[in-house]
Amino acid sequence: MTTPPSKRTEVRRLAERGTYDRALIEAVLDEALICHVGFVHDGSPVVIPTIHARSGETLYLHGSPAGRFLRTIAGGHSEICVTVTLLDALVVAKAAFHNSMNYRSVMVFGTPRWVVDPIEKVAALEAITEHVLPGRWADSRPVTDKEIRGTLVVALPIDEASAKVRATGPNDDVADADLPIWAGVLPVTAGVGAPLQDASTPSGVKVPSYLERYLRPGG
Amino acid sequence: MTTPPSKRTEVRRLAERGTYDRALIEAVLDEALICHVGFVHDGSPVVIPTIHARSGETLYLHGSPAGRFLRTIAGGHSEICVTVTLLDALVVAKAAFHNSMNYRSVMVFGTPRWVVDPIEKVAALEAITEHVLPGRWADSRPVTDKEIRGTLVVALPIDEASAKVRATGPNDDVADADLPIWAGVLPVTAGVGAPLQDASTPSGVKVPSYLERYLRPGG
Repeated sequence: MTTPPSKRTEVRRLAERGTYDRALIEAVLDEALICHVGFVHDGSPVVIPTIHARSGETLYLHGSPAGRFLRTIAGGHSEICVTVTLLDALVVAKAAFHNSMNYRSVMVFGTPRWVVDPIEKVAALEAITEHVLPGRWADSRPVTDKEIRGTLVVALPIDEASAKVRATGPNDDVADADLPIWAGVLPVTAGVGAPLQDASTPSGVKVPSYLERYLRPGG
Repeated sequence: MTTPPSKRTEVRRLAERGTYDRALIEAVLDEALICHVGFVHDGSPVVIPTIHARSGETLYLHGSPAGRFLRTIAGGHSEICVTVTLLDALVVAKAAFHNSMNYRSVMVFGTPRWVVDPIEKVAALEAITEHVLPGRWADSRPVTDKEIRGTLVVALPIDEASAKVRATGPNDDVADADLPIWAGVLPVTAGVGAPLQDASTPSGVKVPSYLERYLRPGG
């Protein structure tokens, strides 16, 4: 399944890197721990990092009612751009001009909808928790009505979306083939380390297995 | 030295996490391999990942003349927001509501200036190369006049900037103190792995030491 490009998501530069493949878009969104959300505030662009979660064809974001981001888009008529980037490698070419990076990135454009239905809201909060900490929701102290009211959730349909991927070695000029300069890639590794227990953990409580063997989707 | 907050950089949410400390802002910019740049295109927000480099009090960005980002801000009158985020840990609280992340992020606002002077342009390209691959510039095939003309560079003063930091354990409610639930943090590790040589490297050329012992600033 592919998502047809809109004028905005049409990947203009280096078109061979662009794709509308749905499975790729979803895999990148699912693997990334954070996203960067762009919105327009008083005519100026603002980009904030935040946590997202995908549930089917919907991307959920959450925040505090006092936060600038959710206050700005409160009218329900504000477009946003959600960009997710996974950095995979530093590409080292013989020519400085051809240095690059391998990455997978996704952009999702749209006007988010406020989530007011408490059932959808709790499901979104569960999706966000499980996105970051798979297995944690059922093991946590459940959210209270007050906490649900104190959290704003918005939903963005993932239909105006595109992915970009670079996943090859250096692309030096043919004329530089014989230069005695090393070329290759340095893999960029992103991982989650061993759990560090907080003093607030009562004695006798063990580290849950889903945290001890933490693994990102695709990781 | 601190950068006085503008109305935009004034950190509104969780003010204790906000700071205008210059050394912190510079350290976060220097450690991060990529940034996310927000700009307004036809009234809509767009966020793209790219590489940056700091040189003193200036942030440099570069790209292709054909790219949407640099074409959009070509007039020199377009504001941008450059956001850099370093994710340090997943914070696991007893209550799902109190899960969080430890991070260091920086936002820089402003209207970038086109870099037209070839000397400043090459210095910016050197800064960008050295930002990602310290030690590489002197070891590379130098940039040609054609490559310099084929690269656009913009400069953004780092004066409307702020940092946000969260660097503590879970912050659960006092009422949840005795719940038999594990709480703590999972460190997020980002690293650069051992160099993988490309087939284009002539035989007998060794991996340079600055790549074999690659280390991010602050890493």
